[in-house]
Amino acid sequence: MRTRIVEESMKQFDKNGFTGTSIVDITQALDVTKGTFYYYFDSKEKLLMEIHLMYIKNLLEKQQVILQQPMNATKKLEAIVELLLHSILSDGLSGRVFFREMRHLKNNNEQTIITYRKKFRQNIEKVLLQGMANGEIKKGHVKIVALGILGVTNWSYQWFDENGDVSIEELTTIFVNMILTGIKE
Amino acid sequence: MRTRIVEESMKQFDKNGFTGTSIVDITQALDVTKGTFYYYFDSKEKLLMEIHLMYIKNLLEKQQVILQQPMNATKKLEAIVELLLHSILSDGLSGRVFFREMRHLKNNNEQTIITYRKKFRQNIEKVLLQGMANGEIKKGHVKIVALGILGVTNWSYQWFDENGDVSIEELTTIFVNMILTGIKE
Repeated sequence: MRTRIVEESMKQFDKNGFTGTSIVDITQALDVTKGTFYYYFDSKEKLLMEIHLMYIKNLLEKQQVILQQPMNATKKLEAIVELLLHSILSDGLSGRVFFREMRHLKNNNEQTIITYRKKFRQNIEKVLLQGMANGEIKKGHVKIVALGILGVTNWSYQWFDENGDVSIEELTTIFVNMILTGIKE
Repeated sequence: MRTRIVEESMKQFDKNGFTGTSIVDITQALDVTKGTFYYYFDSKEKLLMEIHLMYIKNLLEKQQVILQQPMNATKKLEAIVELLLHSILSDGLSGRVFFREMRHLKNNNEQTIITYRKKFRQNIEKVLLQGMANGEIKKGHVKIVALGILGVTNWSYQWFDENGDVSIEELTTIFVNMILTGIKE
């Protein structure tokens, strides 16, 4: 039931926004009582927090696996871009809710999530630094470059359509090439 | 007064979301009556539509000026990236409201805005095609490359801080280089 509440609420948050979705909207869609909701979550805010935590912790775990592999910096960056883009298929909904609704978290919770997100970006920065140190990656402002990479991937959550022009595999190839070697001939 | 209503509502939409902001919230903050609001706007939705239209039409006009200049494709792309990033300072608020709240527009209005946004992206695609034709830009999937460029710029609306690590000028230089030549040494 916990999972069903999370899934239904993500759908409704994605469609009607966090403030536009009430606990009753969620319980009615699932045909359960409000008591059932409160058995699992103290509030709508707690539920939103859970969605955000699931999303970012899952990404961080998968990123950690990549970081520990015996690959050079370029390959690690490629794998991180691939991870973020492939997550659109499995976690597109929670990703969109995450990006749009984060400002609805109360201060403490927002700080927790910001810390996790920062960790993900800082891991990218570490790989960039490693790549700069061994001559794979151009020297530059690691934080801004990391944010540029995250722009390419995170924006895709807004527009990517599974039934659209390209597959996630094609998208990954195009964006990895673009990030690594640019668009100039 | 019209402008004041637009500005106050953008602030509140940015902070509390579209559904989390009522017309009373806006009129109370401005110390005017609800009648004043309805004199200018039929509904909150009309107001949101106005914010979106102002934002995208302004960008399209400025993009048109760039397109008509006697520059090669690379320079035009640079100018468009510069336009989008510099707009964070003047239109950061409306940009963020635009990206987050677009789903609250009713069907017709949403289609109008989507058409304008598509026009902006298609203009980038035309420049890319021109650049591919004359050997400036690597041959590739113009739509996806355009969406990659827009990812770098649009994502900046979410995180850029005027008092942060870099100025908009520095950001523009870093991102233009990244888009054109990539991060690989």
